[in-house]
Amino acid sequence: PSSESSGRVDKEPGSESVVITSEDGITKIMLNRPAQKNAITIQMYQEILSALEATSKDDNSVITVLTGNGDYYSSGNDLTNFTNLPPGGIEEVAKTGSILLRDFVDCFIDFPKPLIAVVNGPAVGIAVTLLGLFDAVYASDRATFHTPFTQLGQTAEGCSSYTFPKIMGPAKAIEMLIFGKKLTAHEACAQGLVTEVFPDSTFQKEVWARLKAYAKLPPNAMRISKELIRHNEKEKLHAVNAEESTALQGRWLSEECMNAIINFLSRKSKL
Amino acid sequence: PSSESSGRVDKEPGSESVVITSEDGITKIMLNRPAQKNAITIQMYQEILSALEATSKDDNSVITVLTGNGDYYSSGNDLTNFTNLPPGGIEEVAKTGSILLRDFVDCFIDFPKPLIAVVNGPAVGIAVTLLGLFDAVYASDRATFHTPFTQLGQTAEGCSSYTFPKIMGPAKAIEMLIFGKKLTAHEACAQGLVTEVFPDSTFQKEVWARLKAYAKLPPNAMRISKELIRHNEKEKLHAVNAEESTALQGRWLSEECMNAIINFLSRKSKL
Amino acid sequence: PSSESSGRVDKEPGSESVVITSEDGITKIMLNRPAQKNAITIQMYQEILSALEATSKDDNSVITVLTGNGDYYSSGNDLTNFTNLPPGGIEEVAKTGSILLRDFVDCFIDFPKPLIAVVNGPAVGIAVTLLGLFDAVYASDRATFHTPFTQLGQTAEGCSSYTFPKIMGPAKAIEMLIFGKKLTAHEACAQGLVTEVFPDSTFQKEVWARLKAYAKLPPNAMRISKELIRHNEKEKLHAVNAEESTALQGRWLSEECMNAIINFLSRKSKL
Repeated sequence: PSSESSGRVDKEPGSESVVITSEDGITKIMLNRPAQKNAITIQMYQEILSALEATSKDDNSVITVLTGNGDYYSSGNDLTNFTNLPPGGIEEVAKTGSILLRDFVDCFIDFPKPLIAVVNGPAVGIAVTLLGLFDAVYASDRATFHTPFTQLGQTAEGCSSYTFPKIMGPAKAIEMLIFGKKLTAHEACAQGLVTEVFPDSTFQKEVWARLKAYAKLPPNAMRISKELIRHNEKEKLHAVNAEESTALQGRWLSEECMNAIINFLSRKSKL
Repeated sequence: PSSESSGRVDKEPGSESVVITSEDGITKIMLNRPAQKNAITIQMYQEILSALEATSKDDNSVITVLTGNGDYYSSGNDLTNFTNLPPGGIEEVAKTGSILLRDFVDCFIDFPKPLIAVVNGPAVGIAVTLLGLFDAVYASDRATFHTPFTQLGQTAEGCSSYTFPKIMGPAKAIEMLIFGKKLTAHEACAQGLVTEVFPDSTFQKEVWARLKAYAKLPPNAMRISKELIRHNEKEKLHAVNAEESTALQGRWLSEECMNAIINFLSRKSKL
Repeated sequence: PSSESSGRVDKEPGSESVVITSEDGITKIMLNRPAQKNAITIQMYQEILSALEATSKDDNSVITVLTGNGDYYSSGNDLTNFTNLPPGGIEEVAKTGSILLRDFVDCFIDFPKPLIAVVNGPAVGIAVTLLGLFDAVYASDRATFHTPFTQLGQTAEGCSSYTFPKIMGPAKAIEMLIFGKKLTAHEACAQGLVTEVFPDSTFQKEVWARLKAYAKLPPNAMRISKELIRHNEKEKLHAVNAEESTALQGRWLSEECMNAIINFLSRKSKL
């Protein structure tokens, strides 16, 4: 029963890495590379960005949801993004990657209507850090939250260097962002990153029933409330995003990071 | 054994909508419309405001408490404030209401001495949102915390668009402020909105014993500590209050809001 | 198996009030006045400050730890700091104390590498307030967290007037900082002041194993991540520290404070 959204023809799930559907005032952006744990490729960043831009202008869309197909929510940035080197080499990858990351995160900062994460399973890296920019985060009790940036020689993005300490205090945030501590869904909920945790067996049913009810609330009141809540931080968040993206560009060219990625991909290829 | 406070003669509870008493260094401001669940009328806003101004200058008053008489703490803004239309019509109601709201909340932002909420039962709307400006919040386990602004076509006030995300993170705050999720006392405590929850059977006894002890602490140290803790945010809070009050003025003139209030009052009149 | 650190020759524990050792990339600063519950004297403030300055420049030091020897983490400021009056009297004590406090706390604000508190037992006063400036806080379940500033006629320091409300919300922070509520380790953890609580029987073993693993992570990634997370607040924190230090200088000359300290020391001398 999917309808069209913003002139975009919905295709069958399975044919695309990002599947966008609209129904009952809810736009669903579903990551759809289950065999790769919904790791996000460069093309997927661009598709999500375009979907958010289109949805923000679509009057029929009241609530927007990001979720994953299969066992994972998302394993984060696809590290093979670093291996298909263009003529400009790793410098070009780092530069274009930093710009893409910044544009991508800016789009979440500026999104004007309620934005909900339906975290159906484990989340890693940028799939976790972006959660600080969502308006509600519902998680299956199978979900985990893992940001092993340091282990990969990298640094935090998605504005998490600002949002996470604000949400959970530095003592909790830094153990995640610097030391790479993995949180369970219940831990993430206790620390304010997650709104509510549901048993996996009833997760989809309970969450979508709730979202359908929310999508019937007065849309202008919701949009103005979000504006009141979020606009004070927008300038700060854009500045943080710019700093984080620049820092990562430097990291991607560092020995620490190159060695860590080579080790990661080589371990993975041996499995 | 009530004594006088600031030249104000205490009357018997029951005769006034807001009852102010002083004893042992504690000024108690009690909402006293139990049959109307302590809904706050325009006159009550003005009385609370006057009481806070008098108390802030009263050297005999060390600690100030807001509480409710009866089963409710307060059901928030009395929606009949919108029904007795003056000659200027709803535009005048919206304009004067916005100014009164702003003055009222400003008074809580600037209050210079410890301000404590003794939440004896359910709290709704502005009775909840103001809690972010209190220095301690003690709640009976019968208390609940409900801000159904969107459901009424309205938006958040009491600086909650700023204080709630700061206290509990946006994922929890927005489910309350935008989606109208009602919290139990224990949930509100886990999320930092409430200092401590007490069993209803011993609530009054335990809380007032504690407050009497606090009122004996060195008053200058408390006042200077509060100044250190709060003054950095005052400018920001006044700006937020102004924005929220302006946004609500617009909301009160909107179709979403008018329809919601008419529905609410009509449902209520049928009970 | 201790090695030298920054040209500093390690001495046997027991001979010094602050013992500094380095091993496996971890610099340990241990308060070592167990018979005085590790109360911090003027000389100890200066030694800790020097140790942090040296460690921040030591490329072999990846992680820095503050901990206590014996049953206590630290009982905070040694109140006998106020009793050995110099020729300038209490005014001089207050002035030099305020400057020392400000320099000491500034050093924690600016510390560029991961800084961990290993809270082995009860913490009081500045030993608690500084925790908001640490990057992780591990606590034994024997630890408690107590800031009885008002009881001593004093006001909060260590930037806690800013960090505590930000970490736990004002309703929880003010009960600690103004009313002197003592927290258990589990309460402090639930409120985000503590990263994780361990059973006392396995505390040292589990924490040091974890710290040794963290000290092997890529140091540049950690340093840059900390810079991203912390640098936005530095200016604010230095301003807060200056205000708190000035407020305390005034407090130390006040009657409220003098009477409270005299009472405290006289009660203590009668034990």
